[in-house]
Amino acid sequence: MFVFTKNLFTTKFSSSLLNWRFLRTMADSLVDINERITSQGNLVRSLKSQGASKEDIDKEVAKLLQLKNLKLGGSEVSGKKKDTSFTLKTPKGTKDWCDKDVVLREHIFSTVTEIFKRHGGVTLDTPVFELKEILSGKYGEDSKLIYDLKDQGGELCSLRYDLTVPFARWLAMNPKVTSIKRFHIAKVYRRDQPAMTKGRMREFYQCDFDIAGNYDPMIPDSEALKVLVEALDALEVGNYTIKLNHRKILDGIFTVCGVPDDKIRTISSAVDKLDKLPWEDVRREMVVEKGLKEEVADKIKEYVLLKGDRSLLDKLEADSLLSSNSSAVAAFNDMRLLFDYLEAFGVLDRFSFDMSLARGLDYYTGIIYEAVTEASAPKIKSSAEKKKSADPEADRSNDDSIGVGSIAAGGRYDNLVGMFAAKKNAKIPCVGISLGLERIFSILRSKIPDEDIRANDVDVFVMAFGGGKEWTGFLKERMSVCKDLWANGIKAEFLYKVKPKPRQQFDAADKFDVPFAVILGQDEFAKGSVRIKQMGLKENSDEGQLVPREEMVSVLKKLLKYD
Amino acid sequence: MFVFTKNLFTTKFSSSLLNWRFLRTMADSLVDINERITSQGNLVRSLKSQGASKEDIDKEVAKLLQLKNLKLGGSEVSGKKKDTSFTLKTPKGTKDWCDKDVVLREHIFSTVTEIFKRHGGVTLDTPVFELKEILSGKYGEDSKLIYDLKDQGGELCSLRYDLTVPFARWLAMNPKVTSIKRFHIAKVYRRDQPAMTKGRMREFYQCDFDIAGNYDPMIPDSEALKVLVEALDALEVGNYTIKLNHRKILDGIFTVCGVPDDKIRTISSAVDKLDKLPWEDVRREMVVEKGLKEEVADKIKEYVLLKGDRSLLDKLEADSLLSSNSSAVAAFNDMRLLFDYLEAFGVLDRFSFDMSLARGLDYYTGIIYEAVTEASAPKIKSSAEKKKSADPEADRSNDDSIGVGSIAAGGRYDNLVGMFAAKKNAKIPCVGISLGLERIFSILRSKIPDEDIRANDVDVFVMAFGGGKEWTGFLKERMSVCKDLWANGIKAEFLYKVKPKPRQQFDAADKFDVPFAVILGQDEFAKGSVRIKQMGLKENSDEGQLVPREEMVSVLKKLLKYD
Repeated sequence: MFVFTKNLFTTKFSSSLLNWRFLRTMADSLVDINERITSQGNLVRSLKSQGASKEDIDKEVAKLLQLKNLKLGGSEVSGKKKDTSFTLKTPKGTKDWCDKDVVLREHIFSTVTEIFKRHGGVTLDTPVFELKEILSGKYGEDSKLIYDLKDQGGELCSLRYDLTVPFARWLAMNPKVTSIKRFHIAKVYRRDQPAMTKGRMREFYQCDFDIAGNYDPMIPDSEALKVLVEALDALEVGNYTIKLNHRKILDGIFTVCGVPDDKIRTISSAVDKLDKLPWEDVRREMVVEKGLKEEVADKIKEYVLLKGDRSLLDKLEADSLLSSNSSAVAAFNDMRLLFDYLEAFGVLDRFSFDMSLARGLDYYTGIIYEAVTEASAPKIKSSAEKKKSADPEADRSNDDSIGVGSIAAGGRYDNLVGMFAAKKNAKIPCVGISLGLERIFSILRSKIPDEDIRANDVDVFVMAFGGGKEWTGFLKERMSVCKDLWANGIKAEFLYKVKPKPRQQFDAADKFDVPFAVILGQDEFAKGSVRIKQMGLKENSDEGQLVPREEMVSVLKKLLKYD
Repeated sequence: MFVFTKNLFTTKFSSSLLNWRFLRTMADSLVDINERITSQGNLVRSLKSQGASKEDIDKEVAKLLQLKNLKLGGSEVSGKKKDTSFTLKTPKGTKDWCDKDVVLREHIFSTVTEIFKRHGGVTLDTPVFELKEILSGKYGEDSKLIYDLKDQGGELCSLRYDLTVPFARWLAMNPKVTSIKRFHIAKVYRRDQPAMTKGRMREFYQCDFDIAGNYDPMIPDSEALKVLVEALDALEVGNYTIKLNHRKILDGIFTVCGVPDDKIRTISSAVDKLDKLPWEDVRREMVVEKGLKEEVADKIKEYVLLKGDRSLLDKLEADSLLSSNSSAVAAFNDMRLLFDYLEAFGVLDRFSFDMSLARGLDYYTGIIYEAVTEASAPKIKSSAEKKKSADPEADRSNDDSIGVGSIAAGGRYDNLVGMFAAKKNAKIPCVGISLGLERIFSILRSKIPDEDIRANDVDVFVMAFGGGKEWTGFLKERMSVCKDLWANGIKAEFLYKVKPKPRQQFDAADKFDVPFAVILGQDEFAKGSVRIKQMGLKENSDEGQLVPREEMVSVLKKLLKYD
């Protein structure tokens, strides 16, 4: 390692013309540069406090600045060196959103935002990173997927993993807020193995709507579900079903079947895989991997493959074993209310009461749900096949409705805020929905023809036609016409050329399917008129209409159906 | 360090009831757990490929899972331990946006978005982090403020520092895009010393609009500035001035005054401080810290304190020294065009041609600008004081217009995309504006009375009035009425109580200044009517109007001035 003396240091660095190549060699070995900066800083402060002469202080300040420059210069130079060799890409599992994709995404955002606001939702926007300890112990096995920021001194932080934990942290930090309907559409981060084509990303959007507060049972739950139905309907995702279950029914089932208390969550995780795996695989996981007794697993099967409409609730209530479990009985009452309320909201037919739905996250305490679509499983089954798959005994691995990812999910979580609150009794019960925006985007992107999405919103392209030596290109005139259009809220563009050709201007307008052109003809404009022409028609089939310039705005507003 | 043998390992971990306290002690010392997981995984794969018996495979799979559980369990346990002791806060320099703040912020977003779209702008959304090397060497001295992600294996990444470099990276990655008007409103990250009350944050919003492409000179530049004026006008930020300069004029000034080429950028940085420091301080920085000759500094002073309207351009052109510099002469032509175009757009009066504006960032190559507002410096000066501060010789440290932060800035940068492009000649010239949203927010937040901002958008609160033993509380009826309102796009809420009191319902509605109530009276509703009452009036001063339920929606739409 290159070691340099204080003498070399002071002589070399006070020369004002810095030799960068030399400095860079040194910079690479300058592990103690920070120490030198600190000690030079101390020297300056000490001179000042001793009332040293201005000249002396300035001299030492100059040395300090050069030291700092050296430190920075070093990293900058090596940065420049890299410029010729770096990989031009976004980080693994991330993407740029642009062009028609971003237009469709904005349509999804504005559609759901409108619905959230219609139900009194307000926005909460939290930082993209949280203190590391806020996220610790909230995500179970998935904690390993959390992105940490580098320790650059100061606090240890991690990128948010979802929007729910930051919401709970905010509620705990703001004890005056005892109730809120909040929505949040933002990116979250998971260091997962990405599968870009399947919409599994490391950076992806979540879209959450949650209702927090102490209310009469199941009323906020039913409104959250009503919001979910309205959103999926408005987005036109196609046929979908919302699977519905209650954690306390599920836990009751496990208890009466004989699952030990400390195994309930892990057995619940196994059951949750029934939408991807056949019963035999799930059973093997329970018995072989998780050490459950075979007869307990077989008893569980009798319950968890049940699904249906609200009549299934009667069947469960009539079950003598299950009705002995107080937790399950409380949940039956919840479900009865919920079905009543969903009926009042006119959305009951969208739900399937499904005992196999368990949901992975630990923090749910009440109802849980998951919306699945048929859009990516279009195969029509014969009635025999249908019957087969409705049979709880059937192997579900060939069921096409299985394996389709959920497009929305959620549930009630009454204890999460309490995990953050200073007082242990400061609980705020919550229920919420989360829409899988990227999956919904994929479904819609494949359904909507490309030509139905316009990449920009421009209504009018302002053009100049003319020729000959006298012709100026009407640049300032086009600017002035655009100024008038913009002032009236009309979206307009013109070509950034002094003397543009007609073809160039039509091409620019056609690129974004701009519906109208305002043409400044050489002679016509001189006489105070502009030509308004509808675009997208066969060339020369429409000469457009000549209107006095002062009527241009009102004619266009009528054509564009503004206000 | 605790070392355990393979024998201990296999016997202890195949017991199905895990002793967590014991395991945790071991887990703390398990530096090689990943290796063990890998080798156990290999064993399982090898057994499978050899066609081993199911029992044998299951046994080894179970061991593998227990190993994985051990690894995760360790971190989870320590996470839970922390839960009782963590600090409940957002990371330093970050904040939650909520309530009326977020409503005002959304108003700012939608206002500028509408203007960007009116000019043909399209959205580009890039990841919140970039490969570290993409950001290297782009920010000069400020590179030390970049947030890095922790090295958790794989790529090294950093949080974006601005929106410009990601935009340039995207352009370089997409060579088919030769022109675009893009806007991007998103958070950026700087590990700066935060000053929250002054709006200096570590996580803050930037709002950029840029025009990329090869066009005739100064046309996109003038439209970018027109967009800036429209945005600041629409936001009603109060009186503002946009300082304007050209890097090539400034560089010409430095050259003709005798600044050595390799000192031009650093002297330019010193000049940029003239809005915060008096000339004497800037001169000292140039001479003492940066080693500029005294006579060169004094010559610079004659130029950089000049400011005025477009007539200043004539003065500069008439300067025999400056007009000998070809770079400056080229820039004069640019400025002449720009002033013409700004006049055509009707915004010339908003600009001040100001030789002291230099801008910190290295990458600007043409015009540069910065908008400053008087909103936070309301002191009115006497005409004598005004004259004094207009005098270029005057000490500017007491000038109240100095020290007000800029609310927007930008410039032309023709070489940034080329820094990323594979072919060195693949340049895409760009010009852009960046609005300082947080500063604009602070100005507006202090100007707009709190009561003028509604925290949510709800138009109607649906209530039930009644009493006695027979009264049900009309919960399902309120749900059904809300359902009809929502279906018609009317924003509505109801209280989540089975039997709410009138006072509770009025309080809930008043909390968000909901303008109308729909009241389901016990007898009236039974007869098919609802009462529509305007809120915010003196109690009992308005009984509202009784309307048949089927007319409720149309009456409300009229009252709310929907469509």
